[in-house]
Amino acid sequence: MLTTRLDLARIRAARRDVDPVFLDTPLYECDALGRRLGCTVSIKLETANPVRSFKGRGTELVATLLTGQGRTAAVCASAGNLGQALGWSGHRRGLDVTVVATRGAPAVKLERIRALGAELELVDGDFEMARERAVSIARQRDVRLVEDSLDIETCEGAATIGLELADAGSSFDTVLVALGGGAMATGVGYVLKTLSPAVEVICVQPLGAPAMTRSWHERRVVTTASTDTIADGVAGRYPIPAVLDDLLQVADDAVLVGEASIVAGMRMLLEHAGLVVEPSAALGVAAVLEDPDRFAGRHLVTIICGSNVDLAAYHRWVRT
Amino acid sequence: MLTTRLDLARIRAARRDVDPVFLDTPLYECDALGRRLGCTVSIKLETANPVRSFKGRGTELVATLLTGQGRTAAVCASAGNLGQALGWSGHRRGLDVTVVATRGAPAVKLERIRALGAELELVDGDFEMARERAVSIARQRDVRLVEDSLDIETCEGAATIGLELADAGSSFDTVLVALGGGAMATGVGYVLKTLSPAVEVICVQPLGAPAMTRSWHERRVVTTASTDTIADGVAGRYPIPAVLDDLLQVADDAVLVGEASIVAGMRMLLEHAGLVVEPSAALGVAAVLEDPDRFAGRHLVTIICGSNVDLAAYHRWVRT
Repeated sequence: MLTTRLDLARIRAARRDVDPVFLDTPLYECDALGRRLGCTVSIKLETANPVRSFKGRGTELVATLLTGQGRTAAVCASAGNLGQALGWSGHRRGLDVTVVATRGAPAVKLERIRALGAELELVDGDFEMARERAVSIARQRDVRLVEDSLDIETCEGAATIGLELADAGSSFDTVLVALGGGAMATGVGYVLKTLSPAVEVICVQPLGAPAMTRSWHERRVVTTASTDTIADGVAGRYPIPAVLDDLLQVADDAVLVGEASIVAGMRMLLEHAGLVVEPSAALGVAAVLEDPDRFAGRHLVTIICGSNVDLAAYHRWVRT
Repeated sequence: MLTTRLDLARIRAARRDVDPVFLDTPLYECDALGRRLGCTVSIKLETANPVRSFKGRGTELVATLLTGQGRTAAVCASAGNLGQALGWSGHRRGLDVTVVATRGAPAVKLERIRALGAELELVDGDFEMARERAVSIARQRDVRLVEDSLDIETCEGAATIGLELADAGSSFDTVLVALGGGAMATGVGYVLKTLSPAVEVICVQPLGAPAMTRSWHERRVVTTASTDTIADGVAGRYPIPAVLDDLLQVADDAVLVGEASIVAGMRMLLEHAGLVVEPSAALGVAAVLEDPDRFAGRHLVTIICGSNVDLAAYHRWVRT
């Protein structure tokens, strides 16, 4: 019996509060990619929606909760995708949304946050600096702070992906999940371990941002002094203890992959699946590339979690 | 009252015979693209499936019919997408599929037809040459000839896209449909004119392959001596009379677009929607680019009908 912060009945109920545009996303075998990787590969595509990432599932829940509480504003730190999604969900409900991001975040993410009508505040430094600034804005303005992975709604939103995978009745044996703060990994992992316990849930994080993976292996919070990865969406340094506790129960493994494999993964997704993805979305393919024997002959699902990428950088990476 | 070859009850029933992987595809507003085009743009994405085009909807029906009739083989001419889709649907049902294509078809389409286990025969010349060869193979081998747009199942399959659009209850007022042989245009058009008659159905064809559009305007079959377009998926020269008759009833307009607009459309779909598409799938955006005043302020749906494109050519087009 899993004793996480997550609850299956709540996750099932959560689907009602999520705009259908984020739900029931495509799940399909990509034969061309599978042949190159030596296994069967199914893609769960989370990019064909107005914010081009899975984060809308969670922000729909957050925004529903906040408006139900009579709140009129919210603030979050974001590497870019949460901010867009909260901007989208907040805008539709009349919530004033402030997003704190780093100056180094992809321009395309920042531009879209602004376009959605959210207030954007930029900070120097990395994602943890943005988190600190969001905390202080919330305090100063007495505004609700939305914390990715800590706020259970962000995990429950991501968990609806797990429901769709479990309900697909497909024959996959492995799910590869990008690991950052842990909302997606704990959400998807919880549902699969509850409904399809034989499916192996493998979290994948960049070697250049390994805090949560190291924490998972050491079974205690391990922080890092810095991050160094192109996978901006998963580049945190301070794992949240409650999220780690959940992840310890629902993940079968957590692996680290190098930058070259992330780039190769992006290139393969373009060449063999016709998908432009952001680096975080290529972590699953990168994991297979780094350990092909482990995955040989398996049927795996890789969640394509986002496609918000600066095209100039993308071309530079993929065409090298 | 429309008197086409199509029938709403049959189309609704057809959904049961189509693998769900092809159904209920994403339909979502793309704000970034809409801002650039001066209107509201919703994308109906038909590429997130195992054959990367909408053609699987129709071939599922064809293959179900053939196996129900005890057939064991089928042959079709294809610009590439029908062949892949028939290969996929046939393979799952134990049908031997032969595909006739032109040597000039995108290599990626030919390679995937072979990978799906179909027999591939290549001919010199254009799509109409492939059609002739497919007819003679069918006669020689006494094998069922599958004819795109003429076989009602291919139109009914495409028409299930129309059902999904009509059922979405979305507020769009215009649907842009790529026009080639006419299966998609007549199928989608029929359903919309039946269920949502106020929605304008606009067919878009390349100036370099204008036979069906000219036929629609002249209300009689007009053929052309040649085609000259990068939109290989819609490059026919001989419109089928029965399909034209249907199209005359269900299309509100048919417009032609230049190659530069198709390329610009592909580029915009990449830059503002993150989608790699084949030229035929950019026809809708191209139509808006060529006549922005006509579409200003409207809410249009563009059907992204395929993403099977040779990447080398794609990069050449999009990055020029």
